[in-house]
Amino acid sequence: MFRIDKDTPAEIAFSEAATSVPLLQQEWRERALRRLNSLTKPLGSLGRLEEIAARLVAIRENERPDCSPKVIFTLAADHGVTDEGVSAYPKTVTHQMVLNFLSGGAAINVVCRHLGIDVVIVDVGVDADIDQINGLVRKKVSRGTKNMACGPAMNQAELYSALGAGIELARSAEEQGRTLIGTGEMGIGNTTAASAITAVMTGRPVSEVAGRGTGLDDAGLSHKIEVIERAIAVNRPDPSDPIDVLCKVGGLEIAGLAGLIIGAAARRIPVVVDGFISTAAAAIAFAIQPKAKDFLFASHRSSEPGHAALLKFISQEPLLDLGLRLGEGTGAALAMAIIEASAKLLNEMATFSSAGVSGAAK
Amino acid sequence: MFRIDKDTPAEIAFSEAATSVPLLQQEWRERALRRLNSLTKPLGSLGRLEEIAARLVAIRENERPDCSPKVIFTLAADHGVTDEGVSAYPKTVTHQMVLNFLSGGAAINVVCRHLGIDVVIVDVGVDADIDQINGLVRKKVSRGTKNMACGPAMNQAELYSALGAGIELARSAEEQGRTLIGTGEMGIGNTTAASAITAVMTGRPVSEVAGRGTGLDDAGLSHKIEVIERAIAVNRPDPSDPIDVLCKVGGLEIAGLAGLIIGAAARRIPVVVDGFISTAAAAIAFAIQPKAKDFLFASHRSSEPGHAALLKFISQEPLLDLGLRLGEGTGAALAMAIIEASAKLLNEMATFSSAGVSGAAK
Repeated sequence: MFRIDKDTPAEIAFSEAATSVPLLQQEWRERALRRLNSLTKPLGSLGRLEEIAARLVAIRENERPDCSPKVIFTLAADHGVTDEGVSAYPKTVTHQMVLNFLSGGAAINVVCRHLGIDVVIVDVGVDADIDQINGLVRKKVSRGTKNMACGPAMNQAELYSALGAGIELARSAEEQGRTLIGTGEMGIGNTTAASAITAVMTGRPVSEVAGRGTGLDDAGLSHKIEVIERAIAVNRPDPSDPIDVLCKVGGLEIAGLAGLIIGAAARRIPVVVDGFISTAAAAIAFAIQPKAKDFLFASHRSSEPGHAALLKFISQEPLLDLGLRLGEGTGAALAMAIIEASAKLLNEMATFSSAGVSGAAK
Repeated sequence: MFRIDKDTPAEIAFSEAATSVPLLQQEWRERALRRLNSLTKPLGSLGRLEEIAARLVAIRENERPDCSPKVIFTLAADHGVTDEGVSAYPKTVTHQMVLNFLSGGAAINVVCRHLGIDVVIVDVGVDADIDQINGLVRKKVSRGTKNMACGPAMNQAELYSALGAGIELARSAEEQGRTLIGTGEMGIGNTTAASAITAVMTGRPVSEVAGRGTGLDDAGLSHKIEVIERAIAVNRPDPSDPIDVLCKVGGLEIAGLAGLIIGAAARRIPVVVDGFISTAAAAIAFAIQPKAKDFLFASHRSSEPGHAALLKFISQEPLLDLGLRLGEGTGAALAMAIIEASAKLLNEMATFSSAGVSGAAK
């Protein structure tokens, strides 16, 4: 595990959560496999669903793991780097989309209603006064990051506030009996931060991992690449120090999601990771505590070019490949239906003996 | 369209259904795209879900297509070629699994309960007396096909009975207001029939398209390949005549599914095609009436080696790739959740103007 400073109460709390992430026990996987092999289907014929079910058993240390109630946390924050003109959309869209989430009109609301998933919208750093809005979870650290092209996006105190917000969301999820968590985000400019994190953590050139985000044209993409290269040159983030990387070129929602992942893993709650931005958070969580990886399910392969490098970094193969590039948690929500199906197959299918079905010839 | 004989009432009825499959109108896709582009998301950011939504609009000729109520038809039948020892499981498992379906203990039952899909189990050719069982739809043509390694699997009258059963299922689905149909099947020995169909229709060698089915070992697979080669040599099915191929090396559930696909397309009901066996039926339906293709959604890429050749034959890219090889309709059921999500996103998302969200800079 990466060594966290313990100079402040926030650092101590985060370090404790990261240290307490457990190691999965092979014995639980084997119990799951024994049951899977007794169910009325040819051996192994449910493919990846069987791997998922076995991992859920080991995560929960429960031979009949539930996936409901399930929740997507969609964390919203603004990015100072939008001053550089890196997005096709104005910064105010972050705030406007938070209102859209809260009135149920965004894509994530539709998919979650469809699949019986709760959506919790969290303000970790929106550049607007939205404290009075009903239904919003208030974890605002600041009104967005500073412009990373000129200096660090945030200081360490802000970073640990955002990480702590994520840890707190995991704690409340456990209290509410949630057994499956999905990650989501909204933040104009956040593919810029995620691309910077990807370039630093994976060592790939910025030009290979930066994409069009919400819809940049060729000139916009060239400019975005130049801004990210400048941010990295100005800040010189240390690839071996995930805390340093997050402070210098991260985002408040990305830090919040990294905290959520660590907090969920510490509480044995599986986490379904959405697309490019969420996977940047997962990469940071993995760099801090490699054991967190076994609690993650990569939901889908985003069409953002940096996503493949991040998935490789955390050794995950996504469940879906649908060309999504929306974020919000939409890919995670779709994958949660498949993950829950895996658990229910394990839990509810008849066995050869209970159903009186003949087995294969030996 | 392939020219169907019209010598019997069954042939005339099937020919009429196949002839009445409509051509999708580009105008409806364009209407869907206009709405998709007005929704609160970056242009095209829902990837394949947008293509699916646009196709649903064109299939239904309805700007707000519903996908519920939805149903999986799981057609069960036996195969005389099991006399050759081509399966890891005894033939009686077809009958036993029908009972398991009806008592709700099979994988397809679990996935459909999870996703709110009705399952209808249809006997088109099970080699058992199960006429009195509650909940079973009786369309039995015969007690299974004959051994294709010795001669034709069925005669033309039997084939048209099975095709007609499928047409009838589509008619009843429309009467019950079903707006999305999934295909499923159960039949010990049916990967042998599907592999034979694949080899004949795509021109690939049997050794490339035959797989381990429910779990053959190397010797079992070699024997299965030899049996299929023998069936093709004995029967000499004509690749340009899908009716001849079905009679000689098909199966009753495969013929029933081909009829279901044609019948559903004729009634503008989209069909979600499960794995290898179902795609063999889709390939036959496509060869009979190429316009049926636009009504199909390939659900998943099976781990059976012949599936890729069939998907290419019908020019479809599957939605999921989860290593499934179970059949029953399990992959179709999972994909139906994604297809319904696409429709709901189109129908329920807010627009930029209704939500007061700023658009992209021009």
